[in-house]
Amino acid sequence: MVKFLGQEEAIKIDQELFTEYCFSVDQLMELAGLSCAVSISKSYPPSEPNSSPLICCGPGNNGGDGLVCARHLKLFGYNPAVYYPKPTEKPLFHNLTTQCKAMDIQFIDQLPDPQTIDAKYSLIIDALFGFSFRPPARPQFAEILNTLQKVTIPVCSIDIPSGWDVEKGCPPEGGLQPEMLISLTAPKKCALHFKGKYHYLGGRFVPPKLEAKYELNLPQYPGTDVCLKLD
Amino acid sequence: MVKFLGQEEAIKIDQELFTEYCFSVDQLMELAGLSCAVSISKSYPPSEPNSSPLICCGPGNNGGDGLVCARHLKLFGYNPAVYYPKPTEKPLFHNLTTQCKAMDIQFIDQLPDPQTIDAKYSLIIDALFGFSFRPPARPQFAEILNTLQKVTIPVCSIDIPSGWDVEKGCPPEGGLQPEMLISLTAPKKCALHFKGKYHYLGGRFVPPKLEAKYELNLPQYPGTDVCLKLD
Repeated sequence: MVKFLGQEEAIKIDQELFTEYCFSVDQLMELAGLSCAVSISKSYPPSEPNSSPLICCGPGNNGGDGLVCARHLKLFGYNPAVYYPKPTEKPLFHNLTTQCKAMDIQFIDQLPDPQTIDAKYSLIIDALFGFSFRPPARPQFAEILNTLQKVTIPVCSIDIPSGWDVEKGCPPEGGLQPEMLISLTAPKKCALHFKGKYHYLGGRFVPPKLEAKYELNLPQYPGTDVCLKLD
Repeated sequence: MVKFLGQEEAIKIDQELFTEYCFSVDQLMELAGLSCAVSISKSYPPSEPNSSPLICCGPGNNGGDGLVCARHLKLFGYNPAVYYPKPTEKPLFHNLTTQCKAMDIQFIDQLPDPQTIDAKYSLIIDALFGFSFRPPARPQFAEILNTLQKVTIPVCSIDIPSGWDVEKGCPPEGGLQPEMLISLTAPKKCALHFKGKYHYLGGRFVPPKLEAKYELNLPQYPGTDVCLKLD
């Protein structure tokens, strides 16, 4: 069975990809975001009426994965919109934003109320927080999470359902219950508490030696696929 | 019909991807190299006996595409080796090399004679020169091309059959005749003279506005595929 990572282990693996294997964030984010877009298109095909996902991007790398995902979804025929309330200052994130805007992806300044979200969009892509998140969320994001909990359209979380403890899962006071979860690199312990319909694994870039060192026991990706559905 | 680009036009489109759309070389090279690996696995599946491609990488970005391709081929189950006689000094190329070596991809220092290549490898991946090449090749690479012309295993060229004029095709004195060509972004004029079995298009990252501006008339990629077979 595939290993479910603790938070410290996830952070160490991530660091090792950059320090030992000399990957750049640009490279891995591109592959991760692409795998998210492909996974989403398997569960929510773009041919479905009103294929307008709203990608909610947080201030860190999870938000970057979301921006890359948005761009590939656009190329796949979706009509995505992005909500990116606290853009990161780094050049990469500025560039990812420029790429999306130059491809006519709409950026919205305010998150609408839940009813408006339900009416305008087909899917929420939750790219707010990733594996380095430690609760509680800051007030600005707590409010966003509160709104997203009230929508009835499906939510797809990238790597972690935002607001969840990376190991323990949904907070006792309640939180997001995504219909889809895309674990990147390897699932985190909180994924054991995921009760949605679709659990995918993406981020097919883990060097075999790194996989062996951390005993990740990843399932074999079929053929050249960039993602796979977990049971 | 898809447009076949002249050299100046190919250079302008490439520059615009970086200046207007703010892509990084890391990002586009990752997507290009991935699309090459996927295309190759469609024509020469890794399950075939002795799936050991030899990737010959040149000093520029075409060589970088080859290094990325080698890494993904390794993850797809191939046993690739790399010949990279004139490594580029830039950090990205150093990092791409480190990634390959850390994944136990063998780097060879000398190109063997044609008979030894035929015996040891199943496929040559030609990542020597791309769309900015102007003949003649320097002596070091002319010698490499001379060897590769004599092998009998198939050759797959990335973007341009190396040694060819980007517009006019194979030099009159003879040159590589690849069995497979993977055009990146859009085919170049020399691809009109390609007589091999498999012509693929890869590099699915062209923003629709850029496609329209240059009237590329790209065929539609099926679903979420990163490459497609051209007729």
